[in-house]
Amino acid sequence: MPQEANQVSAPAPARQVRIELADRSYDILIGADLLGSAHSYAGLPRASTALIVSNTVVAPLYAARLQAALASAYAKVLLVTLPDGEAHKDWPTLQLIFDALLQNSCDRKTVLFALGGGVVGDMAGFAAASYMRGVPFVQIPTTLLAQVDSSVGGKTAINHPLGKNMVGAFYQPQRVICDLDLLKTLPARELSAGLAEVIKYGPIADMDFFSWIESHIDALRAADSLALAHAVKRSCEIKALVVGQDEREAGLRAILNFGHTFGHAIESGMGYGAWLHGEGVACGMVMAAELSQRLGLVDVAFVARLRRLIALAGLPTVGPVLSQSDNAGRYLELMRVDKKAEAGEIKFVVIDRPGSARVQSAPDALVRQVIDACCVPL
Amino acid sequence: MPQEANQVSAPAPARQVRIELADRSYDILIGADLLGSAHSYAGLPRASTALIVSNTVVAPLYAARLQAALASAYAKVLLVTLPDGEAHKDWPTLQLIFDALLQNSCDRKTVLFALGGGVVGDMAGFAAASYMRGVPFVQIPTTLLAQVDSSVGGKTAINHPLGKNMVGAFYQPQRVICDLDLLKTLPARELSAGLAEVIKYGPIADMDFFSWIESHIDALRAADSLALAHAVKRSCEIKALVVGQDEREAGLRAILNFGHTFGHAIESGMGYGAWLHGEGVACGMVMAAELSQRLGLVDVAFVARLRRLIALAGLPTVGPVLSQSDNAGRYLELMRVDKKAEAGEIKFVVIDRPGSARVQSAPDALVRQVIDACCVPL
Repeated sequence: MPQEANQVSAPAPARQVRIELADRSYDILIGADLLGSAHSYAGLPRASTALIVSNTVVAPLYAARLQAALASAYAKVLLVTLPDGEAHKDWPTLQLIFDALLQNSCDRKTVLFALGGGVVGDMAGFAAASYMRGVPFVQIPTTLLAQVDSSVGGKTAINHPLGKNMVGAFYQPQRVICDLDLLKTLPARELSAGLAEVIKYGPIADMDFFSWIESHIDALRAADSLALAHAVKRSCEIKALVVGQDEREAGLRAILNFGHTFGHAIESGMGYGAWLHGEGVACGMVMAAELSQRLGLVDVAFVARLRRLIALAGLPTVGPVLSQSDNAGRYLELMRVDKKAEAGEIKFVVIDRPGSARVQSAPDALVRQVIDACCVPL
Repeated sequence: MPQEANQVSAPAPARQVRIELADRSYDILIGADLLGSAHSYAGLPRASTALIVSNTVVAPLYAARLQAALASAYAKVLLVTLPDGEAHKDWPTLQLIFDALLQNSCDRKTVLFALGGGVVGDMAGFAAASYMRGVPFVQIPTTLLAQVDSSVGGKTAINHPLGKNMVGAFYQPQRVICDLDLLKTLPARELSAGLAEVIKYGPIADMDFFSWIESHIDALRAADSLALAHAVKRSCEIKALVVGQDEREAGLRAILNFGHTFGHAIESGMGYGAWLHGEGVACGMVMAAELSQRLGLVDVAFVARLRRLIALAGLPTVGPVLSQSDNAGRYLELMRVDKKAEAGEIKFVVIDRPGSARVQSAPDALVRQVIDACCVPL
């Protein structure tokens, strides 16, 4: 299939990244035209039935191609279409997957295929983890954010009215299939949101990659296939290294949450779906970098450099006001239910030097200063 | 604490059974007066908060003693009280646990204590598996059934309107604490229901134990402490052996479901809660033994012997009529959603010789004969 690229015209070659987790190890395939190729699905668990979990936006675009590609391997290929968006990452929507599985008498060999962005992946993954106490599943992320972050590493969850991703499981997929062609239909806003998680890997792990992103930001925003191929592969490599060392987030893995503590507060405080997850993370990274600077860990120039790249990626760098009376207090309140918090003490991912992150607490007064500095009243 | 025993007056000594599952190994403590002893909880994960999950029947009897015993180890000991019964083993009730955890800002170190029967254990266990993707939990089973079966081995689940235990997780507790004194307040019907799972271990694994149960059935029904101590210990030993070899039920573990395929159909067909789980299993064991006999695996005398012991235990041996028009068809329909079914083919646990079980399918016509023989119209 010919590639439409802006800067480079060669097709993106297929790449592979392995997640090493003993008997739960698996591969991430990265390349063009993977969705419709039966080869992408070779070697997956055998079963009579496959269930594709998708949403109302993605299914009309891609479900038929996936169904066709799976038809040779599975006698029955079912499809359940969920409502789109983070606002539906809840129990009633999850229940639609269980209903489909049970109404079709799906057994414990049934393979689930998550065809969509992070929300679909999280819900299909948690459904796979829980249905009959665990059936196999495959991630086919259709957004950049899902390809570089949420589909890899086995975190699955739904939201609770009192907190994001509060109910879920660590449950690894059998394979992750990142078809770069799928990103061509992605709205610009979603592409930018995905770039937030790509940018994240720089400050926490690899400033050379950060520099590469800076010099390719236009190509990335134009969905250039070769640029995206490298961004997805390097992101997955870094994530694989971290997850391989700390699958269940006993320690190190928490650094992948850089920007997420503030970001989750923004998402939750604005109502799920108002801000995209990547937008919350982008703004949250600016705030976490500001905090790192005020803790004396990085200099002002580093914060400015990060803020500049986030802005160039088309992402917000100024936090929303969540409360007119006590904005910082509202942020703090929302952050106290973060999963990293312990005994009510909020844990932040801070940059201890460019390319390296750690988790620590910070005085409320300092966090308030950061919030005040980063939020501008409407 | 003095023991009230019918046949034997010595106190039941504390016993211990280990479940070997690599880094998920844990101990089952069996003895008198364990609930109120701080020693029972020594060495559990440290945390600022413990949450006791119980129900409206058990909490008034025992929650205060547990709270007192935990007070030295946890700064905050919370209690959530669920409605009682299998009919409430559903998502809305599970949500009460998540609500309590989030409303109290419980972090991912919080330890859950399941204080109740199988329903409480299954729900607290699934909540622990899912809250923030996994927090530690301890089983304190208060029914015989939970002590000898459901609290051990890490199966957790809730029911779906279309099937029992369809949504859940394999998630091991940190410890199981079987306080035999708690069985003294157990209604006779519940005690009998628990005996069904004790009897189960005979045909599938240990006919010497079956003979021991036959000769101690009166003592067991009278809640004699020494008899119960042996019954609980031997049951847990057999379960530990099986689960240690096949934690996630890839094969062998399925034999623990002897009687459960028919039993689940009875429970589901009658509406959850009409028959106790142990009653369904008891009657289901008679049906599964009948099937084994009609498959030529065991003789009529074996079936009669099992039926006799089940009756002596105060348990049903005749199946209910689930449909006036096509009773066997209704049983078959309900059994096809059993988790052991594959591609619509029902898998039965059959006795291939007394003391040994295996999983296999059977012709529908033969299963219909079994159901017709075992169900008597009202």
